[in-house]
Amino acid sequence: MNTIAFQDHYPEELSHCYGCGKNNPDGHQLKSYWQHIDEANLNASTTIAHCIPDMKYTAIPGFVYGGMLASLIDCHGTGSASGMAYLAQNREIGSLPPMRFVTGALNVNYLAPTPQGVELTLIGRFSEVKERKIIVEITLSANDIVCVKGQVIAVLMPDSMTPKA
Amino acid sequence: MNTIAFQDHYPEELSHCYGCGKNNPDGHQLKSYWQHIDEANLNASTTIAHCIPDMKYTAIPGFVYGGMLASLIDCHGTGSASGMAYLAQNREIGSLPPMRFVTGALNVNYLAPTPQGVELTLIGRFSEVKERKIIVEITLSANDIVCVKGQVIAVLMPDSMTPKA
Repeated sequence: MNTIAFQDHYPEELSHCYGCGKNNPDGHQLKSYWQHIDEANLNASTTIAHCIPDMKYTAIPGFVYGGMLASLIDCHGTGSASGMAYLAQNREIGSLPPMRFVTGALNVNYLAPTPQGVELTLIGRFSEVKERKIIVEITLSANDIVCVKGQVIAVLMPDSMTPKA
Repeated sequence: MNTIAFQDHYPEELSHCYGCGKNNPDGHQLKSYWQHIDEANLNASTTIAHCIPDMKYTAIPGFVYGGMLASLIDCHGTGSASGMAYLAQNREIGSLPPMRFVTGALNVNYLAPTPQGVELTLIGRFSEVKERKIIVEITLSANDIVCVKGQVIAVLMPDSMTPKA
């Protein structure tokens, strides 16, 4: 079930996000997937993403920049929200009209400095799933230690943000 | 009082931050300054920073990437905290030992999409000032409209993060 990332199902015109858009060559291109789908309780399903940040994203030498970590949590959250929206509505992911989510609020707690040069693992869980609002709780780990916890309150993208042709 | 930014007083070895380090040529190099120093009530002083994000920091075409906005709030918060720490202790800014702050928590509310190609203004206010913990409340505006509100809980950098020579 993990062959195509949530973000790679976004419509082309909504795929320029610096954090996760496949059409942004300068960006992080984060890819989020289902880790586990709980058929009996869809909201208990979990999502996963991996990333090794480029060394330029420094905080203090040796540690990853906190803004980069916030960005990864943000994009894993909105990606997971899109995946869940399709799952909850039993629609094929990526089918039209698109269900692209944007961030209403982003809350990040930095528990420990995050080392550079290490693959980071993000796991997403769902604490609220509504049609237009999905809350994703995310842990970010390095070497199996949770360094950052975050929460993304994702809201269905308003029409006013849709690019005009 | 605004000739040198808070961040440009950081020691050289602590100036590699992607968001605000003068020694990170790839980063945003955000510069934060005092906007107003309230001599009668130091905690009522305010800080200011300006930035026009590079166009690559896209969310949806036309709007600035939320992770970029979180980064600006983060770095304006920790910079403002450092400035306030020196002010509160009546020490010359940048004097040794350094008072460099890192982010314990970052909370961001996206109130309206932030347009690209516009100078953004960040204003910082202080809701708590302690020796090792300073909380900064920040607004980010474009065209005089507040697009984002954020809170940075900044903590004095632990010795464990100091780069070893």
